[in-house]
Amino acid sequence: MINKIVMLPGDGIGAEVIYAAKEVLEAIAKKFDRQFEFSVHDIGGIAIDRHGTPLPTETVEACKKADAVLLGAVGGPKWDNNPSDLRPERGLLGIRKALDLYANLRPVKGFEKLLHASPLRQDIIQGSDLLIVRELTGGLYFGTPSERRNNGEDVVDTLAYSRKEIERIVDKAFQSAQLRKKHLTSVDKANVLESSKLWREIVEEKKVQYPDVTVEHVLVDACAMKLITNPTDFDVIVTENMFGDILSDEASVLTGSLGMLPSASLAEDGVGLYEPAHGSAPDIAGQGIANPIAMILSAAMMLRYSFEMNEEARAIEKAVEDVLNEGYHTKDLKSHDGTLVNTNEMTALITKAI
Amino acid sequence: MINKIVMLPGDGIGAEVIYAAKEVLEAIAKKFDRQFEFSVHDIGGIAIDRHGTPLPTETVEACKKADAVLLGAVGGPKWDNNPSDLRPERGLLGIRKALDLYANLRPVKGFEKLLHASPLRQDIIQGSDLLIVRELTGGLYFGTPSERRNNGEDVVDTLAYSRKEIERIVDKAFQSAQLRKKHLTSVDKANVLESSKLWREIVEEKKVQYPDVTVEHVLVDACAMKLITNPTDFDVIVTENMFGDILSDEASVLTGSLGMLPSASLAEDGVGLYEPAHGSAPDIAGQGIANPIAMILSAAMMLRYSFEMNEEARAIEKAVEDVLNEGYHTKDLKSHDGTLVNTNEMTALITKAI
Ligand SMILES: CC(C)[C@H](C(=O)O)[C@@H](O)C(=O)O
Ligand SMILES: CC(C)[C@H](C(=O)O)[C@@H](O)C(=O)O
Repeated sequence: MINKIVMLPGDGIGAEVIYAAKEVLEAIAKKFDRQFEFSVHDIGGIAIDRHGTPLPTETVEACKKADAVLLGAVGGPKWDNNPSDLRPERGLLGIRKALDLYANLRPVKGFEKLLHASPLRQDIIQGSDLLIVRELTGGLYFGTPSERRNNGEDVVDTLAYSRKEIERIVDKAFQSAQLRKKHLTSVDKANVLESSKLWREIVEEKKVQYPDVTVEHVLVDACAMKLITNPTDFDVIVTENMFGDILSDEASVLTGSLGMLPSASLAEDGVGLYEPAHGSAPDIAGQGIANPIAMILSAAMMLRYSFEMNEEARAIEKAVEDVLNEGYHTKDLKSHDGTLVNTNEMTALITKAI
Repeated sequence: MINKIVMLPGDGIGAEVIYAAKEVLEAIAKKFDRQFEFSVHDIGGIAIDRHGTPLPTETVEACKKADAVLLGAVGGPKWDNNPSDLRPERGLLGIRKALDLYANLRPVKGFEKLLHASPLRQDIIQGSDLLIVRELTGGLYFGTPSERRNNGEDVVDTLAYSRKEIERIVDKAFQSAQLRKKHLTSVDKANVLESSKLWREIVEEKKVQYPDVTVEHVLVDACAMKLITNPTDFDVIVTENMFGDILSDEASVLTGSLGMLPSASLAEDGVGLYEPAHGSAPDIAGQGIANPIAMILSAAMMLRYSFEMNEEARAIEKAVEDVLNEGYHTKDLKSHDGTLVNTNEMTALITKAI
């Protein structure tokens, strides 16, 4: 069986890190006798430049036919002043919607060796290991109306959800918790928003189906505090799209290893999209110094979630840990000891460790 | 001239801290020959218990006639399962709207003596001193429709702003920056929301009127990261209601002294409301151990913003610093050395220092 992988390098360091992941996947194919077939398509700024749209139809079609999608990153100053529909982010939002990628999974786990780079005190961050499950295709991001009114004097955006949309992400979160420490924190603003009240009701309804999982409800403002003061209290966090955007980025800097964090965006039955939690980092693009590990670990998530290749995924994760434990690090990790390496060197080390 | 102050103790530790602030204000009156007249009214849970509504008309009327309002805190587990309109928070949202308190000012500044309690590394938090200016009467909190639809199968909330609402909060933020380090960070999600695009346009329009202030735009997700990794980069942050709720709570734990942080909620020309950034802390209510300093510093903000009594405000702030520098602290501050005191003792120390 051949697994067809669409690669969307995108902008900035996107291409550098995605080809690193490809190398690692090729090493996996060799070692475990698997067959991966890669094709490359445009998204984001580069797609605007080449095709006049951040999401060419051809890209969507290719993704729909693929078994999984790897995405580098989109965006950069070049397109920052474009009109809305010609912005790189539109490509990202568009592909999420087109593939119905409703569940964004973002694990945040520190590497022992790198915790010194955490902005938090060691005693606070030590031992933290959480997973944010963010709803990705609803809420303020896609609700209508979203428009100016009265000659531009007023403006509205709409936070809309259907019961079904909430149910499926809540189910996914409970299931994710069952595979981990069996604790779910549902985050909402039920003291203000109607949508949050429905969200909370659905979590309460669903929890009887997952009696092995303990559930707590935390308000989004309280959660933003608790992530900093008590990060080890969390296991799985589930929340709606905009809250998830903010909280997952907040959580991503806690361990000090943003360049190490993967993510998966999953559909109900269909293709999954895997991308690093970091952005396109235009400031260091083209220098060959980007940390490829977040992208490589995203490829590992792809093996696990889309291809059910657990052993292969584990082999990548283990290789990454080993290389870090040997003291190798890229520039972003700001290590004082050990050996500084560039993107290619880090990739080669990981490939060799596999 | 007599300054009429309405006190709204509210729930939990609200009463304990508000009477502490009253004592301090009485010391100020004596020392600076001022006249304050206090009256007490109900809001929140206690108002639900006594009057069947979290915001009695009588309370609103009293606030409208006052020169300033001090609020303790609202909420507690007792009312957590009440229907929406009988929840303590409704009292808070209602009074904000009734008095048109559109500008919420939340300074976050660490006390040297207490920085050891910060969850952040010392080198990261040291020297941070920021002010969050949150829009408080618009956005998702008050937009309509906010309702279930299709027999409860769908739900919407509305993020609505008028140009005028955005303009006045942006003006307030620029003016606040002029009184500080003259740097303004405007936070939005302009890559997704129409309301954020209008917000960003208005900030760009306004900045020509404040040429002495430097301005940057930061996306809300990036801001949630940067508050943790680079808190000293900020001076004044301005943002809409919901983003402000999340970011100001996030910021409030950075210095490790949540029990020390005051806030002011201001109207265009009218009464201001002053309350601690912390909540009603039902777990320690009635024990006489609450930290009254956030409330006392809120009273200082009242003197400064509502009564233009700068010297008096400074006297309170100085007294607080002195007492802390002498090593006195309440239980929440988790100091290992110095002297542990309760609410009354802390209040007496501050009063004496005045
Ligand atoms: C680029 C942007 C539209 C996107 C989002 O807000 O979802 C990004 O911040 C993310 O979290 O993937
Ligand atoms: C109690 C709640 C409605 C309120 C808010 O969200 O505004 C509180 O969190 C605050 O920040 O003052």
